[in-house]
Amino acid sequence: MAQGTRRMDLGDFQQLIEKMYSHKDRERGAAGTFLWLMEEVGELAAVIGERADEASKQDEFADVLAWLATLANVEGVDLSDAVQAKYGRGCPGCGGMVCVCDAKP
Amino acid sequence: MAQGTRRMDLGDFQQLIEKMYSHKDRERGAAGTFLWLMEEVGELAAVIGERADEASKQDEFADVLAWLATLANVEGVDLSDAVQAKYGRGCPGCGGMVCVCDAKP
Repeated sequence: MAQGTRRMDLGDFQQLIEKMYSHKDRERGAAGTFLWLMEEVGELAAVIGERADEASKQDEFADVLAWLATLANVEGVDLSDAVQAKYGRGCPGCGGMVCVCDAKP
Repeated sequence: MAQGTRRMDLGDFQQLIEKMYSHKDRERGAAGTFLWLMEEVGELAAVIGERADEASKQDEFADVLAWLATLANVEGVDLSDAVQAKYGRGCPGCGGMVCVCDAKP
């Protein structure tokens, strides 16, 4: 993984997106927001499939994460709590900090 | 947005997923990892559409974010750097910390 020098707390990012876009998000609702998320997922698929340059890939990962945070805001889900609860104590399948599940190869 | 009490740095989460799953992820590759991400996106759509309980929604958001982090690991993209670069200085469209773009209603 590329090693970044900047830090971004997941909760802070979700709140940044909330502040930036929530006035539009609430009106659009969950289904409409999901459509935008899917558009960005499609663009991410494109840059991966095309083996695009690093900047383009970074750009599309950012957009998918921003729309996922937007959808979480609309649904009232705290992403930081969500990942802590599910992955903070180890793999949900086997409990290990290094997964040894047979499932999901 | 629900207010969580725990903190999760985005880079730390990506490294947690790297440690937990990278031995499988490298072998599976980007295309196979994208398939798993899509399965989780489908499950997220289901719980939103069904207006499922908060715990179920939290669970599915966590899985989508975990598979997005997995895909970012396979592609060598730092999610924290990515969102900082694109959203850290304001909306990519209008530059505002509160978006006033006409696009993307």
